[in-house]
Amino acid sequence: MMIERLGVVGCGLMGGSFALAARAHGLVREVVGYSPSASTRAAALAHGVIDRAVDHASDAMNQADMVLLAVPVAATAHCMALAEQALAPHALLMDVGSTKADVVQMAQQHLGARQANFVPCHPIAGSERAGVAHAQANLYRDRRVILTPAKATASDAVAHAQSVWQALGARVTRMSPAAHDAAFAAVSHVPHLLAFAYMLGMIGQPEFDPWLRLAGPGFGDFTRIAASDPTLWRDVLLANRTQVLAQTQAFEQALSTLTQCLAQQNADGLHQLLCQARDARGQWTLRAD
Amino acid sequence: MMIERLGVVGCGLMGGSFALAARAHGLVREVVGYSPSASTRAAALAHGVIDRAVDHASDAMNQADMVLLAVPVAATAHCMALAEQALAPHALLMDVGSTKADVVQMAQQHLGARQANFVPCHPIAGSERAGVAHAQANLYRDRRVILTPAKATASDAVAHAQSVWQALGARVTRMSPAAHDAAFAAVSHVPHLLAFAYMLGMIGQPEFDPWLRLAGPGFGDFTRIAASDPTLWRDVLLANRTQVLAQTQAFEQALSTLTQCLAQQNADGLHQLLCQARDARGQWTLRAD
Repeated sequence: MMIERLGVVGCGLMGGSFALAARAHGLVREVVGYSPSASTRAAALAHGVIDRAVDHASDAMNQADMVLLAVPVAATAHCMALAEQALAPHALLMDVGSTKADVVQMAQQHLGARQANFVPCHPIAGSERAGVAHAQANLYRDRRVILTPAKATASDAVAHAQSVWQALGARVTRMSPAAHDAAFAAVSHVPHLLAFAYMLGMIGQPEFDPWLRLAGPGFGDFTRIAASDPTLWRDVLLANRTQVLAQTQAFEQALSTLTQCLAQQNADGLHQLLCQARDARGQWTLRAD
Repeated sequence: MMIERLGVVGCGLMGGSFALAARAHGLVREVVGYSPSASTRAAALAHGVIDRAVDHASDAMNQADMVLLAVPVAATAHCMALAEQALAPHALLMDVGSTKADVVQMAQQHLGARQANFVPCHPIAGSERAGVAHAQANLYRDRRVILTPAKATASDAVAHAQSVWQALGARVTRMSPAAHDAAFAAVSHVPHLLAFAYMLGMIGQPEFDPWLRLAGPGFGDFTRIAASDPTLWRDVLLANRTQVLAQTQAFEQALSTLTQCLAQQNADGLHQLLCQARDARGQWTLRAD
């Protein structure tokens, strides 16, 4: 499965790590990279992430056998419109976005006949340290990558995408775009929304500063995701707002049940609910199988 | 500051670690311990946490110069009623509970003249591994301990308590019981309530199991405190329910502001709020000074 030319559009942590991993596993002969910023292109060259930098996204797509879109969601539609023109008929096109129904919709609107070539991907990987300088060849090893093929996606494109991610050491799962977005609203997007909301509720109060000095490790864990990138999370939350709002309602209902127990001093009811929550969390472990 | 006899009522992680620390720092000549369970008393003796086990809580108070109450909140009032009879007029009495206004109220009702001897304490220390087997002499070193003297507390008792905790390596802060409970509702009790509520909202949905298999490290951090002891947290939440419910309202208001931005697709407003939350969390670090 030698890829003669890999095009990377967006040479950040995700795109740069994909290029490094593909090279480390001997999958590619040449990596052509594009980023809008000249300094990012220079850094990608300097770190050996790409072999050649190009000044236009289209030039990273022309004559490539495989193209990875690793750009902010706001830039995705424009890149797809370029790909509709530039992508070779045999090429595989993948993205790495955290939401999938919106990306599939963009593909319908902008990719034309190249929808068949496009496999929407969500690698569950990342780092709080963004940027090409932190790209690493093992970012995707033993991490889960979810493929959410659309109706228009060719089945051999899905099989090809799966074999590429598996070659990089990732565990591949297939889901529908809608099932993906519901699941990640529940397990990722809503926790981020709640952690952001909790911090906002705190800073709205005058005692905020002295209170925060008393906060301990539990606070630190609970709020860690509130330190995430606001631009990325604005885009994720907006892109998946229907599922996020539905999951937020499920949370609010559960919170209301708990606060009613508290207000009514219903010790037994409260204890029963806390035991259910504790049991569910106690049984959870991080896994990528 | 030699303590001839330390009485420990409740030889668990907190009480046992206090005894070990006091001995390690050469503060005590004899430790007398009580726990309702014979096997805990035997383990406390076997681990060298106490010198002598007694069958009644009163016997750990009689003739002691210092008594630490380290029992569940449900047992505190009864222990105070015993202390009112058993405690020597010169003895220092301390507790280690996570809420303080309720303990001060119990002292008013049950301690009589010995209210002067009682210094309510909240050491910000602990471990997910409870029990005397995990007691350790350095549990309180470099950790914050908050003293919340009541109006009836003698000022020399507060000074004595402060010097004892400092001798164990802890950093001592003084606050009013009400200020303490408001602060910990904000930075600890509400995060626990929200993490429990989030897990409850999850397990109420049929897709719960497959969703949880997709959850990543962010989910793990956010929900870690939902694995906490339900009995302890039932008691903390009920004891501090007024402050917890007030802080929950502040959270709900902030969440509502965020979900309105989402529903209205107000990208700029959402971004601004996420930036505020991120900045506040980004500046926070764990500290005990």
